[in-house]
Amino acid sequence: MKIKTFVLLLCFGLPLIAMSDNSNPLKLWYDKPATEWMQALPLGNGRLSMMVYGGIDSETIALNEITMWSGQHDKFQERPCGTEVLSDIRQLFFDGKYVEGNHIASEFLAGLPHSFGSHVPVGDLKIDFKYTDKEIKDYKRVLNLKNAVSEVSFKAGNVGYKREYFCSNPDDVVIIRLSSDKKGKLNFDLSFDLLRESQVLSQDNGIEFTGTVSFPKQGPGGVGFMGKVTVKVNNGKILANGGKITVKDATEAVIALDIRTDYKNPNYKSDCANSVSKSIQQNYNRLKDKHIKDYSALFSRVELSFGKSEADNLPTDVRWANVKSGKNDIGLDALFFHYARYLLIASSRENSPLPAALQGVWNDNLACNMGWTNDYHLDINTQQNYWLSNIGNLHECNAPLFEYIKDLAHHGEITAQKMYGTRGWTAHTVANVWGYTSSGSSVNWGLFPTGSSWIASHLWTHYSYTSDKDFLRKDAYPLLKGNAVFLLDYMVEHPKNGYLMTGPSTSPENSFVYDGQHISLSMMPTCDRQLAYEIFSSCVEASEILGIDAAFRDTLKNAIAKLPPIMIGKSGAIQEWFEDFEEAQPNHRHTSHLLALYPFAQITPEKTPELAKAAEKTIEYRLAADGWEDVEWSRANLICNYARLKDAQKAYSSVVDMQRFFARENLLTISPEGIAGAPYDIFVFDGNEAGGAGIVEMLIQSHLEYIEFLPALPKEWNTGYFKGLCVRGGADVDLKWKDGKVSEAKIVATSDNAFRIKLDTEQLIPQLKKNGRTIMLKQQANGLLSFELKKGETMELDYNV
Amino acid sequence: MKIKTFVLLLCFGLPLIAMSDNSNPLKLWYDKPATEWMQALPLGNGRLSMMVYGGIDSETIALNEITMWSGQHDKFQERPCGTEVLSDIRQLFFDGKYVEGNHIASEFLAGLPHSFGSHVPVGDLKIDFKYTDKEIKDYKRVLNLKNAVSEVSFKAGNVGYKREYFCSNPDDVVIIRLSSDKKGKLNFDLSFDLLRESQVLSQDNGIEFTGTVSFPKQGPGGVGFMGKVTVKVNNGKILANGGKITVKDATEAVIALDIRTDYKNPNYKSDCANSVSKSIQQNYNRLKDKHIKDYSALFSRVELSFGKSEADNLPTDVRWANVKSGKNDIGLDALFFHYARYLLIASSRENSPLPAALQGVWNDNLACNMGWTNDYHLDINTQQNYWLSNIGNLHECNAPLFEYIKDLAHHGEITAQKMYGTRGWTAHTVANVWGYTSSGSSVNWGLFPTGSSWIASHLWTHYSYTSDKDFLRKDAYPLLKGNAVFLLDYMVEHPKNGYLMTGPSTSPENSFVYDGQHISLSMMPTCDRQLAYEIFSSCVEASEILGIDAAFRDTLKNAIAKLPPIMIGKSGAIQEWFEDFEEAQPNHRHTSHLLALYPFAQITPEKTPELAKAAEKTIEYRLAADGWEDVEWSRANLICNYARLKDAQKAYSSVVDMQRFFARENLLTISPEGIAGAPYDIFVFDGNEAGGAGIVEMLIQSHLEYIEFLPALPKEWNTGYFKGLCVRGGADVDLKWKDGKVSEAKIVATSDNAFRIKLDTEQLIPQLKKNGRTIMLKQQANGLLSFELKKGETMELDYNV
Repeated sequence: MKIKTFVLLLCFGLPLIAMSDNSNPLKLWYDKPATEWMQALPLGNGRLSMMVYGGIDSETIALNEITMWSGQHDKFQERPCGTEVLSDIRQLFFDGKYVEGNHIASEFLAGLPHSFGSHVPVGDLKIDFKYTDKEIKDYKRVLNLKNAVSEVSFKAGNVGYKREYFCSNPDDVVIIRLSSDKKGKLNFDLSFDLLRESQVLSQDNGIEFTGTVSFPKQGPGGVGFMGKVTVKVNNGKILANGGKITVKDATEAVIALDIRTDYKNPNYKSDCANSVSKSIQQNYNRLKDKHIKDYSALFSRVELSFGKSEADNLPTDVRWANVKSGKNDIGLDALFFHYARYLLIASSRENSPLPAALQGVWNDNLACNMGWTNDYHLDINTQQNYWLSNIGNLHECNAPLFEYIKDLAHHGEITAQKMYGTRGWTAHTVANVWGYTSSGSSVNWGLFPTGSSWIASHLWTHYSYTSDKDFLRKDAYPLLKGNAVFLLDYMVEHPKNGYLMTGPSTSPENSFVYDGQHISLSMMPTCDRQLAYEIFSSCVEASEILGIDAAFRDTLKNAIAKLPPIMIGKSGAIQEWFEDFEEAQPNHRHTSHLLALYPFAQITPEKTPELAKAAEKTIEYRLAADGWEDVEWSRANLICNYARLKDAQKAYSSVVDMQRFFARENLLTISPEGIAGAPYDIFVFDGNEAGGAGIVEMLIQSHLEYIEFLPALPKEWNTGYFKGLCVRGGADVDLKWKDGKVSEAKIVATSDNAFRIKLDTEQLIPQLKKNGRTIMLKQQANGLLSFELKKGETMELDYNV
Repeated sequence: MKIKTFVLLLCFGLPLIAMSDNSNPLKLWYDKPATEWMQALPLGNGRLSMMVYGGIDSETIALNEITMWSGQHDKFQERPCGTEVLSDIRQLFFDGKYVEGNHIASEFLAGLPHSFGSHVPVGDLKIDFKYTDKEIKDYKRVLNLKNAVSEVSFKAGNVGYKREYFCSNPDDVVIIRLSSDKKGKLNFDLSFDLLRESQVLSQDNGIEFTGTVSFPKQGPGGVGFMGKVTVKVNNGKILANGGKITVKDATEAVIALDIRTDYKNPNYKSDCANSVSKSIQQNYNRLKDKHIKDYSALFSRVELSFGKSEADNLPTDVRWANVKSGKNDIGLDALFFHYARYLLIASSRENSPLPAALQGVWNDNLACNMGWTNDYHLDINTQQNYWLSNIGNLHECNAPLFEYIKDLAHHGEITAQKMYGTRGWTAHTVANVWGYTSSGSSVNWGLFPTGSSWIASHLWTHYSYTSDKDFLRKDAYPLLKGNAVFLLDYMVEHPKNGYLMTGPSTSPENSFVYDGQHISLSMMPTCDRQLAYEIFSSCVEASEILGIDAAFRDTLKNAIAKLPPIMIGKSGAIQEWFEDFEEAQPNHRHTSHLLALYPFAQITPEKTPELAKAAEKTIEYRLAADGWEDVEWSRANLICNYARLKDAQKAYSSVVDMQRFFARENLLTISPEGIAGAPYDIFVFDGNEAGGAGIVEMLIQSHLEYIEFLPALPKEWNTGYFKGLCVRGGADVDLKWKDGKVSEAKIVATSDNAFRIKLDTEQLIPQLKKNGRTIMLKQQANGLLSFELKKGETMELDYNV
C-alpha cells in the first residue's frame, strides 16, 4: 500500500515539499492569512489573475480576467465641434477670455462616455476546509517571485497541509494544488461567490458559470463571459452539485480554472472548456514546470541586490511595518523592485489581450464601485505602468500596450476628424477597451488630446532600448507619424507671436485662477509643448533611421522651431501654462510640466541647468504646499525626477516613503484613503511599476548620449550589484559597486551599436575587455568612453585591477 | 378768483369729468382698488406699458418696456451636429431604436441657451397721497376700451379726486393726470420702486434712473436702460429730491414718463429725455386727443354685441365672480372679445420694436422669477398672440411679428446650416430677442425646428386676409420660401416607404411610451407633416400669384405628394406621431396634431369628414383623461377647434370656461396655479388673444373657398351683430342676426377679389345690393353665392325684405 501511494503521489507532483527557505530574498511571506484584499497575494498570467488570501478554514481567491469589461463601442463618443466653432473657441482663449472659452469648450468639446464601461471583477473562488484536528501551527504563506508560485502550508494537529497556486501562461489557466501529508485528510467544499449575475451549472467534477457583464453605473453593454473549474483528486470522493464541489477524504486535489469573455473572441466558451479540460488531464508537475520555465525566462534576466538585510528573515508584513515605523530595510527596497518586474510579467504578456489597467490585471472591486473605472488613463497612469518594461529587460511585456495603441490610433482617427477636423489620430485623458478616444465627460480633466502623444512616446522608448528597426518600421513609426500629423493639423499659430499652439487643452487635472475662477483649459499648456516636441523629434529621428519621409521630416523640423520654449515663471519654477497663471491648487498631485525632466530629457542638469533648477523648484513648491496630494504615482514621479536631478538622497527618501505611505502589507501600491477622492486605500498599479522604474533610474541612466552608472546612488545602497538592466541603444548592463564606486561593469550588446560610457573622473580608468579580451580605448576629453559592439558582443570594465 | 381758476383748469383739460357711465359696454370697472397684479388694469402703447392698481393712499403702477431684456446674442447657441451624425441618429429612429436615438439626439442636438435672457419688469411707480379728510366714498376704477384711458375717481371727504392714465403711441410716453375738484387739495410723493439696480437722479421736477439689466438666472448680458419721469403741477409746490418728487397743495398734476433701452437703439438716453420733455410741454388734452385718435382708429373698426346683458351695470370683478359661480353673461363674452383687440393694440403696433411676448407687453415678475423667460415660444404661444390680428381687423398689429420673423430667419440660417447642414432658415421651440434660433436646452421639448414653419405661416395668413401682393412679394414669400428650402433639405425619405420625413423632432412638449420609457423625439410627428404641407402649399400658391419660381414650385408639389397622410390611430383619434405610439400623457395640454384643424384647414368636416371625426375624438380623449392639463391656451384651442368642428355649444362652453377658470378679475388669462408647472396663477397673453380669435371663428369663417356666417353660433348668442371682422380674400364683414339667423350682411372689399358666400339653405335668398344698388345674382348649385368686388366696393345681403 505504502509503495503504491508513493507512486501515485509522485504522479501528482510530490514529494511533499521542503518549503522554500526564508533566506530567499525574492519572496513575500507571512505567518498568517490575509484578512483583506491588500494583504492577499497577487498572481497573474497576463490575462487571468488571482488574489490569494490563504485562509485556513476558508480560502478566498479573488478572480479577475483582463477583458472582463462592461460598456460597448459607441460611435457617438465625440461631438463634431466644427472647425469654425473650434477656431472661435481658440480666439476666445487668445483674447484672454478664459472663463468664456472654458465654458464654450465645455459645451462643444466634452466627450460622451455614455457606454464607457469599466473593468469589473469576476468574484471569489471559495474553498471551505474541514480538519480532523483544529489545532493549527507552522502557518506560512509565500509568494515566490523566482517561480511565480504562491504556497500556503500549515499543520492541523499532526497533518501537514500544503497549497500551491499559480497562473500559467503556457496553459492559460489558474492551477491550484491542495494536499495533505497524511492519506485521505483533505476535505473541502469548493464554490464561487460571484459578483456578476450568472447561470451556474455543476456537473462531472466541475462548475461552470456563464453570464453577461452588466454594470449600469458605467453605462450599457458588457462582455459575455464563462468560467469553469474542474477538480481532480487523488483518493477520496468528489461530488459536484448545486454550484458546489465537495471533496471528501482525498490526499491531493488539483484544480484547474479558467474564465474567458467574448471580447474579440467568439470562441470564448469552447476555449474556456478546452483550457480547463486540457490542463486537468496533465500531470501537475508538468503544468508547474511549463509555468516556471515560461515565467523565469523573463524574470531571471535581471538581478539586483543592495546586500543582505537584517530583516531578510522577517515576514514581509513585519518588514513593511518596520519600514513604516522608520526602520531601514535595503532588502525590502530590492524586493520592491523585483516585485515590480514580477507584477508586470503577471499583468502584461505578449499574448495578453489587453495591457495592464489602473489595477493591472487585478481589480479590488473598490475602485470601480466608487466610480473609478479601472481603465486606461492616458494622463500618466497607463504610462507609469510601463515605465519599467524596457529598462527592466521586459521588452516583450510592452506587446499588449502597443497593440492597444494601434487600437487607439484606429479609433482616434475618427475622433481627430470629428472633434478637430484633423488628419492623424488622437486620444484623450481616459480610454477603455471599446475604442473610446474622445475627451472625458468634463473638459476640465478630460480635454487632453496629447494623452495620445504621451502614450505614443512609449513606442519610441521601446525602439530606443531595442534598436529594433523592424518594429520601428512596421509598428512604431506609422503610429508616431499618425500622431505627429494630428498635432501638425491640430496646432494653430499664436496670433501675436507665431508660436505653434495646441488647445484648448488642459495640464492634466490641474487648473489656474483667472477672473477669480478656476479654469482648466488654455492654449498650449507646457506639457503639450513637451509632448509635441517629443513626438516630432522622435519622428524626425525615426524617419532618418528608416531613410524615408524626408519632406515630412522638414515639416516637423520647422514645426519644432516654432514651438514655444519651456518657460520659467515668476516664482522661479517651470511655468505650467503658456501664460504664467496663478495655480488654483499649489498642492496638486499632477506635475505634467515636468515630463521634460522625466521620462523625457528636454530638461537635464547637464544641458539645461536653469530649467533643471526651475524643475527642482516646481517639486519643492508642490511638496511645501499645504496638503500636497501625495499618492503612489506622484511619489513615483518624485523618485524618477530626483534621480534625473541627481539628488540621490531625496530620491531614496521617496523610495522609502513609497513603501511606508503608498504600499500595503502585500507591497501593492495605493492611493491612500482621503487623498484625491479615494474614500479608502485604493490599489493602483502604477506606483509599483513607476516606483521600480525610479529605482533603476537611480542606478543607471542613458537618456543623454551616454550611459551613466550610479547617477543617484544613495548612501544606503552603497554596495550592491545588478545584472541585466537595459540602456538605450540596445544593451544589457551588469554592474557591481562598492562603497559608492563602480567596481565592475559589463555591457552586453543586444543590437549592433555604438555605446558611450561616462567614466567617473575620480576613479582610475578601468581595465577593458571586449568579448573577454583585454583592449585599450582612448577616453574622450569629455570623460566619455566610446566603443562599438555587435549584437552579442560584450565590453567589460574592471576597476579591481 | 373763481373764474381764473376755471380758465386754468380748462387749460389742463378740465371740466372735472362726468365719469363715463356704467352702461358703456366697452369698459372694465371696479369699485375698489386692485390688491394684486391680476386685479390691476393693463395699458400699453406697443412698447411701454402700465398695470394700474388704483390704490387710494398709495398708487402702484407696474411699469414695463418691451425691450427690457437680459441676455445677449450668443454665436455658440447651436451645436454643429454634423450631417453624418445626423444621418446616424435618423437611422436609429428608422430602426426603431427610439430610446437610443433620443439619448444621442439629446447629446448632439440640444441647444445652448447660455445667454438666452428674459424680458424683465422695470419696477413700480409709487404715488403716496395725503388727504385732509380720510373718509373715502364713490370709489371707481375704470378701463375704457373705447379710448384706452383708465380712470380712478373717488371722494375723500368733500374733495373729489380723479386720476387718468394712458400710454400714448404718438407721443411714445406714459401720461398720468392727477386732479382734485377743490383747489390745492392734491398732495403726494412720487417715487420708483425699481426691480433693477439703477442709478437714480432727481432734479428739476423729475427723476431719472439708469442701469444695465442683470438677471443671472437666465445667463449673462442685458440691455442698458434709462427711465425718466417729469411732473408738472397746476398750483402748489413741487420738489424733487433723493429719488422722490413731492407735490404739495396742487390742484392738478400731469406726469409724463418714459423708459427706453439700448436694444437696437444707441440713442436711447436722449430719446427718453426728449419724449418726456416734449410731452410735458404739451397741453394734457392735446396729448390725450392725439392718443385717442391714434388708438380708436384701430379699435373702432370692429363692433360686436350679443345684446344687452343684465350684468352690464355691475363691476367687472362681480360679473367675473358671477360667471365663475355659473351665471351667464353674454355682455362679458363680448367684452372679453373687445378686450382681446384692446390688448393686442396695447401690445403690438407698427412701430413696436418687438412683438407681443408670453405676457404681451407686460410682465408680472412672477413668470420670469419662477424660471419662465417671458420670451417668444414658437410652439403655440406667440402664434396664439396673433390669431386675432387679421380676422380682428388689426392687420397693422402684425408688423412687429413680421419684423421679428425676419430676424429669426436671419439668425436661423446659421442654425439651419450648423445643426442640420441645410440651406434656408429654421427656429425652434423658444426664441428670444437676441436671435436665438437653436433648439432648447433639452431636446425633449426643445427640438422642434418646425416652430419656424408655424410662425412663418402667419405671413401667408396675413396675405390671405389682405391680398397685399406687395407684402407677399417683398416680405412674406422670401421668408416662406426660406423656410420651405430648409424643410426640403432637412427632410429625408423614409427608407421603407419613401415618405418625406422631418426629424428627429418632437410633437410639442409631448412624449410617447417606448420600451417602458417616455420618449419625445421621433421622425415626422404629425404636426410636422401639417406644417410642412402648409408651408409648401403656401409657397406654391404664392409663387403662382407672383408668377415666379416655376421650377421650385414643381419641386414643392413633388414634395407635397411625398408627405405622409394624416393618419387615424387605433383609438380612432388623429395619430400624434408617424407611428401609432401610446401617449405618455393622455392628459397632455398640447394637441399640435390638430393644427390641421385650426388654424390650418387640412382637416374640415366638409372635406375630410373622417379626419374631422378623429380630431373630435382626439379632443374628447384629452378632456376625458385624468387631470387634463387645462390652461388658458389649450382652452383657447378648444374654442377654435370646436368652432371649426361646428360644435357651437361646446365652443361656447369653452368661451365661458375661459372666463371662469383661465381669467382673473382683470380678465387677463392665466395658466392657473398647479397646472403645467406654475406654482401660482401666471398671466399668459395667448389666452386673451386666441380666446378672442375663437369667438370670431364661431361667428364667421373663410378658410374654405367661401365665407360662412355664424358657423358655430351658440344659443346664448342667438341675436347680435358685428361690424368689421375680416375674411380671406380681403374684405370687412358686417353681420346682424336674430334668433340664430342672419338678417343683414355687408361685405366691404379691401382688395379687388372674387368672393363666395355660403348661403343658409333654410333661408330664402336675401336681397342683394352691390355698392348700394340692388342686383340679382345666381345662387350656385352648391349653395354658394359668388361675386367679384373691387377694393372699396360693397355687397349687402338683406334677409329682412
